[in-house]
Amino acid sequence: MTVRVGVIGGGQLARMMIAPAVELGIDLRVLAEEEGMSAQLAATAVGDYRDLETVRAFAKDVDVVTFDHEHVPQEVLRALVAEGVQVHPGPDALQFAQDKLVMRARLTELGVPQPDWAAVRDIDELQRFIDDHGGGAVVKTPRGGYDGKGVRVVHTGAEVADWFTGLADGDALLVEELVSFTRELAQQVARRPSGDIVTYPVVETVQRDGVCAEVIAPAPDAGARLTAMAEQIGRTIAEGVGVTGMLAVELFETDDQRILVNELAMRPHNSGHWSQDGAVTGQFEQHLRAVADLPLGHTGARSPWTVMVNILGGPADGGLEGRFAQAMVEHPEAKIHTYGKAPRPGRKVGHVNVTGDDLDDVVYVARAAAAHFL
Amino acid sequence: MTVRVGVIGGGQLARMMIAPAVELGIDLRVLAEEEGMSAQLAATAVGDYRDLETVRAFAKDVDVVTFDHEHVPQEVLRALVAEGVQVHPGPDALQFAQDKLVMRARLTELGVPQPDWAAVRDIDELQRFIDDHGGGAVVKTPRGGYDGKGVRVVHTGAEVADWFTGLADGDALLVEELVSFTRELAQQVARRPSGDIVTYPVVETVQRDGVCAEVIAPAPDAGARLTAMAEQIGRTIAEGVGVTGMLAVELFETDDQRILVNELAMRPHNSGHWSQDGAVTGQFEQHLRAVADLPLGHTGARSPWTVMVNILGGPADGGLEGRFAQAMVEHPEAKIHTYGKAPRPGRKVGHVNVTGDDLDDVVYVARAAAAHFL
Repeated sequence: MTVRVGVIGGGQLARMMIAPAVELGIDLRVLAEEEGMSAQLAATAVGDYRDLETVRAFAKDVDVVTFDHEHVPQEVLRALVAEGVQVHPGPDALQFAQDKLVMRARLTELGVPQPDWAAVRDIDELQRFIDDHGGGAVVKTPRGGYDGKGVRVVHTGAEVADWFTGLADGDALLVEELVSFTRELAQQVARRPSGDIVTYPVVETVQRDGVCAEVIAPAPDAGARLTAMAEQIGRTIAEGVGVTGMLAVELFETDDQRILVNELAMRPHNSGHWSQDGAVTGQFEQHLRAVADLPLGHTGARSPWTVMVNILGGPADGGLEGRFAQAMVEHPEAKIHTYGKAPRPGRKVGHVNVTGDDLDDVVYVARAAAAHFL
Repeated sequence: MTVRVGVIGGGQLARMMIAPAVELGIDLRVLAEEEGMSAQLAATAVGDYRDLETVRAFAKDVDVVTFDHEHVPQEVLRALVAEGVQVHPGPDALQFAQDKLVMRARLTELGVPQPDWAAVRDIDELQRFIDDHGGGAVVKTPRGGYDGKGVRVVHTGAEVADWFTGLADGDALLVEELVSFTRELAQQVARRPSGDIVTYPVVETVQRDGVCAEVIAPAPDAGARLTAMAEQIGRTIAEGVGVTGMLAVELFETDDQRILVNELAMRPHNSGHWSQDGAVTGQFEQHLRAVADLPLGHTGARSPWTVMVNILGGPADGGLEGRFAQAMVEHPEAKIHTYGKAPRPGRKVGHVNVTGDDLDDVVYVARAAAAHFL
């Protein structure tokens, strides 16, 4: 019988699982938030992922439940698991991607290098952390942030007074030291329920305004030591949190050659989009293999270099479609991936992957091709 | 507005257009012969492609009509064109893929090298051709043959007496000389309505029992002369018949180093499946680009070697699904493509692509991975 994989959430990550699902013969079914979302083609249900009845009804007709995002509430996930539903990643793992304070505490237990951090409940506690860490810090809301939202760089505790006011009793904010880093990296890992793990080459990610703009695979000048360190961190976390499916570990490379964990994502992640065209097994295929507990695919790079450039915002004058001909005629080697979303300033509406032997050329072509869509 | 491409026919060729359509943001719609076909996910209509009303209703909601097969009758196609529907390839081109006698006559006009041939109306005419060509010949029904069906090697005219009996008044059979060939090749070409043409590297195809079994890309030891010859033949035919979309030209390489045209297909073709994983632009993406009149993609190989092995028949004991784990765990580098079809002796139910630097290794892995499904 064909494996039925149910994806909660109808965004671009669910959309990009469609292509490998078709080729592998996996019956992909999506619970979308509304009609007309990115993953519309595979949507078999529309409803609120926070509603247990909705999710339960969706889960009834699939063999395994996985996710387009990490926002499904723990109580919904735990109810499914209690009823015998296969959920990958499961709630025990997913909590570390849902709550940054829980994640930081677990990474401390695992001995994984990370920035100094603390849970702070009021302005005074935050101010003491700032004073102890050179007069600046990064404050994060533990839940619900993405793409730079829920993150503020501060120099006084009062700068997040509004966030403290909104805190529920017993809740806290996460504060982290301001890391002096030379660049950001990301490590992709896939883990099966049976425990098998594979890792991808570590990549460099370039953020603009808190949003991923470009990825270079592999990270230039990574060297054997850095590569092995990133891979080891990825493996330690994947095993330590018991993730199933894809795990993305966002990393800082510091001025003094350390690597510190910045964020975790337990799903295919923007920093892994390069693998669709640059690796033997793309992260969307790998995620499907992992959550369906199929043997994992080869993670090697198919070219010396792959560069991914996001299409952020899209053209002001309408959809992407009018720009295709222009981009394609000038860059016949560019692989264009679109998300079927209406352009809006800053919104991720697609990306371009380019592969090749010369990094400068590959970066140039990827940027030039993506620029046609802006 | 998103380009809507309508595909007539719900087989595996339509199915394999789904993945690139999703990534490019093309709205793919399929008119399937029945429920539950390979391209089910994109099926928006079910009906008889020989019925003008059915096809007309389907065509009404798309920007361009293309095909999973070449069996839509000329009168249906011409009615659509007369009503202003964009049809690619159009009926003027498609007639050369629908009728082998019409094809042979056109190739003669174009001066393209091909086996000696004739239209024969009775046993005597056929016998004379056989006698003039060393005592053997290949007889083909001009229409409706595929995968070795409608083809017989004969040594006397009487061996196709049944076919002559079934001929309508004025119809003929095609007879071709028995070519002494060392191997079979295939040349993929894509052509836009605007006239732009791109060609793929010439490949070697290995047939078993008249069905494509393996493809090696590029054709080993092809050399510059053979490669240029195959490419020139592909271009000449693409222009000469006015094809739009993908064209596959099946070729014989003769004992005396000539290349002769065997068959034409005006759609993505089994001999081009290697390009899904082995070329910068796979043939299914290229077909969509071409029929939507978008600029064509780069056709270069991504690896020194790509080998495609068909999964013919599938396991006797049920579906392919049970074999995935075994194939994947032993061959993590193999790219498995399935067609969502029930196994049946000799039926094409999927294929495997493997890429790499060493041809012997690549052939071994591709065969071994595919063998898990038998």
